[in-house]
Amino acid sequence: MTAETQRLNRESYLQWIQGLDAFLFDCDGVLWRGATPIQGAAVVIDLLRSLNKRVVFVTNNATSSRATYVKKLASQGITAVESDIVTSAWATAQYMKLQNIEGKIYIIGEAGLKSELELEGYQVSGMEHSDIKGFPHVPVIDLETKAVVCGLDRYLSYFKMAYATACVRQIPGCRFIGTNPDSTYPADGAIVPGGGSLVRMLECAIGHPPEAVCGKPSQDLLQTIIATYNLDPARTCMVGDRLSTDIEFGNAGGLSTLLVLTGITHESELGSIVNPLHVPDYYIDSIDAINQLHAGTLDI
Amino acid sequence: MTAETQRLNRESYLQWIQGLDAFLFDCDGVLWRGATPIQGAAVVIDLLRSLNKRVVFVTNNATSSRATYVKKLASQGITAVESDIVTSAWATAQYMKLQNIEGKIYIIGEAGLKSELELEGYQVSGMEHSDIKGFPHVPVIDLETKAVVCGLDRYLSYFKMAYATACVRQIPGCRFIGTNPDSTYPADGAIVPGGGSLVRMLECAIGHPPEAVCGKPSQDLLQTIIATYNLDPARTCMVGDRLSTDIEFGNAGGLSTLLVLTGITHESELGSIVNPLHVPDYYIDSIDAINQLHAGTLDI
Repeated sequence: MTAETQRLNRESYLQWIQGLDAFLFDCDGVLWRGATPIQGAAVVIDLLRSLNKRVVFVTNNATSSRATYVKKLASQGITAVESDIVTSAWATAQYMKLQNIEGKIYIIGEAGLKSELELEGYQVSGMEHSDIKGFPHVPVIDLETKAVVCGLDRYLSYFKMAYATACVRQIPGCRFIGTNPDSTYPADGAIVPGGGSLVRMLECAIGHPPEAVCGKPSQDLLQTIIATYNLDPARTCMVGDRLSTDIEFGNAGGLSTLLVLTGITHESELGSIVNPLHVPDYYIDSIDAINQLHAGTLDI
Repeated sequence: MTAETQRLNRESYLQWIQGLDAFLFDCDGVLWRGATPIQGAAVVIDLLRSLNKRVVFVTNNATSSRATYVKKLASQGITAVESDIVTSAWATAQYMKLQNIEGKIYIIGEAGLKSELELEGYQVSGMEHSDIKGFPHVPVIDLETKAVVCGLDRYLSYFKMAYATACVRQIPGCRFIGTNPDSTYPADGAIVPGGGSLVRMLECAIGHPPEAVCGKPSQDLLQTIIATYNLDPARTCMVGDRLSTDIEFGNAGGLSTLLVLTGITHESELGSIVNPLHVPDYYIDSIDAINQLHAGTLDI
């Protein structure tokens, strides 16, 4: 169990990097921040791959499909294929398959969630209700809806929230699932509501929490990732910017953890972390520090 | 303190009605349900007034102004003036005045909230953002915003939620206030999200709860009502359909409490109420039972 975090430095770097075979990278706040690239991101991925480290991208963003993430990574100079990428939308689809949920799904979510669910054979509705302004009528729900899935939806409408609420309240057995718990995300200089905030609204209206929240820090997801990529947890490092998702995800699963300060967490918070699962093994200012530390070892 | 609830019946009615000088009536679920009138509502108000009981309407609905409520009551055959009516929008404006908040306010809310705040001199914005679809850009907030007020908003948009979040997170001293805690409300056969669910979303995104939630069961509001109408709490009865707002509001303030079963609470729930503040002194199927019980006393 981690006790206190420390800055990854020239003294600790070599032993750290040699002890690892694989890296799970959070994306937003680590490789980029909104539309702004973070310096050295593409270089560090190339470096790790040149050292024969397996790199997997693990994001709680549920609004984009893995196919879209391949393009987003490419635009930052990072080569990846879909099977290198885990999104909370994909994680949600995997969870639902394991739970033997089939048929019609109502989503509070965007195109990436819809497409990942459709790839697994689900009939997805919800997005068509973004055009309904105000609350012109009480929703007439499809009584065959098997589950409501809620994630970030920037086309949120009251009608959609009322529809989702009515499904879970009125249809016996209708499931309620969240894609990810992130209360906020950083968007070009502002902190704006994340999927977790929408889940909280729906939880309040439905009257009970979702049966599962599928993104980080879900340990069901970590076990799926370990099995899928055949990883040794003790030789895998989770790199992220958020204590309550990325760092808890790694620590709870016995991974090594590395915090970067280019996202949601400020250095001033590090001295007063209450939850021991939120204490990263190491932290660095930005991902570029790995490039600099590695260059330092070459000097020796 | 109340112990167990009992049905108001022919044995208990006369002593009950003679012990009361004033009635606070919740509206939705008591006098009507959505657009549907509840039988006997107008008759019971006339009856109580004929017995020289003071009648005040106290609603957590923040979407309509008191002026609109006068018309709504009239359409149900109930005569009332604005000063007979307390809404959570009015309560919020009173709270803000007492707190010496002045100037610009950003609302997640509808026309009734806007007009009650404007009547107290506030400059209110927010409603104009209902037309923004999706999340085309991070909000450029007005840095002179003094408070964010959140209530039910059926024209909810993600942009508005992001704007409100940014105000409280980025403007030093910007206040965060909720109009009412109702997680749901009944709307023509369905249970749909209430203002309290929107407050929960914003609370999650902002990172802390509102400093105050102004509607029932706020005891600040009850004290304001007692002072405004010069009531004796022990001789005042709160009549409502929701345990966690109406009944708690009355019980916590030493009022008599009467639950009706025409709204959000089902009779099956009455045997398993955990919070002693949620146990009504009496319950009846519907408000019309008072008319019937009173007619019964005339037979004697």
